[in-house]
Amino acid sequence: MYQYAASITKLIEQFARLPGIGPKTAQRLSFHVLNMSQQHVEEFAAALLAVKEDIVTCPVCYNLTDVEPCRICSDESRDRSLICVVEEPQDVVAFEKTRDYKGLYHVLHGVISPMEGVGPEDLKIKELLKRLGNEEVKEIIVATNPDVEGETTALYLTKLLKPMGIKVTRIAYGVPVGGDLEYADTVTLGRALLGRQEIT
Amino acid sequence: MYQYAASITKLIEQFARLPGIGPKTAQRLSFHVLNMSQQHVEEFAAALLAVKEDIVTCPVCYNLTDVEPCRICSDESRDRSLICVVEEPQDVVAFEKTRDYKGLYHVLHGVISPMEGVGPEDLKIKELLKRLGNEEVKEIIVATNPDVEGETTALYLTKLLKPMGIKVTRIAYGVPVGGDLEYADTVTLGRALLGRQEIT
Repeated sequence: MYQYAASITKLIEQFARLPGIGPKTAQRLSFHVLNMSQQHVEEFAAALLAVKEDIVTCPVCYNLTDVEPCRICSDESRDRSLICVVEEPQDVVAFEKTRDYKGLYHVLHGVISPMEGVGPEDLKIKELLKRLGNEEVKEIIVATNPDVEGETTALYLTKLLKPMGIKVTRIAYGVPVGGDLEYADTVTLGRALLGRQEIT
Repeated sequence: MYQYAASITKLIEQFARLPGIGPKTAQRLSFHVLNMSQQHVEEFAAALLAVKEDIVTCPVCYNLTDVEPCRICSDESRDRSLICVVEEPQDVVAFEKTRDYKGLYHVLHGVISPMEGVGPEDLKIKELLKRLGNEEVKEIIVATNPDVEGETTALYLTKLLKPMGIKVTRIAYGVPVGGDLEYADTVTLGRALLGRQEIT
């Protein structure tokens, strides 16, 4: 059967290996690349290589960074008594966008998941414990995802950290801002009721 | 505000420039690239550059190819009296997949669209006329898309080619195979009725 020229097929294959990109989209993207300017394609290829070369994990918080330690860890204006524990580097950016948080972070790079064979030893948990020995941390905010694995990890961390005399908190559950109560699921609504706060 | 490291931001921007990829998907793809092996990223970058380097348009049919003339034009077993005129190189592959067509192709690289300022002179139409002078073509199948621009182009080509004594045909309209009549739009259903054929 007739097929695309070898280098087009190769590019389609490369795109199709990316998450959420099926063969049809990979084909469309490849033809878009064919119509891009030479300069633009070179920039794209260089950006791909640069990201692997420049980016390392911060030796303190394990966020992705191009300087060591990362910009947040080395920022003197931040509250060093507060550490927010998140699953992935993306979560750090999500919290930073709120502009409501001025403490430090710790990225676990995953979550406890027996189903996928991920145990506590695969996460940056012992590195977190090491930090607690060095720094004067008063509170740990556990901000793992509100799903089964995230809850398990939060529980594990709580059991580990509580005996060390550190305050461990969990981000609040409730109805999302701008959401519609009618469409909120019962578990979320129940948690929103339980977590109700007095209006002052 | 805190942002990703410069090279991550740059890669996100590059992904976001691709069609159908928004900022969230671009971010997800960039983090996927960060987790890919060095070798895989290098292959991806090389595939991007190779496609710009290797691929040219066939000087006969204007399909994309890595050999000149392309594999279809140089295939002696194909029926050289039949040319299927399509809008884009992707359409050639779509027809080849049917395995029902054994003639040649001609890729217009676009479609007449006054709204977007594309006129007949921007398409490979004079190149098609030149081919007709050289080769013994008996029939031209106009396989532009069944939309307003495709119809306009088909009409334009018909008016141009008919006086030259060449048979000009248009691909059939009708209900898609496997479709449900209930959901077919009235125009398509009307065309399917008009184009009905006797069962033999």
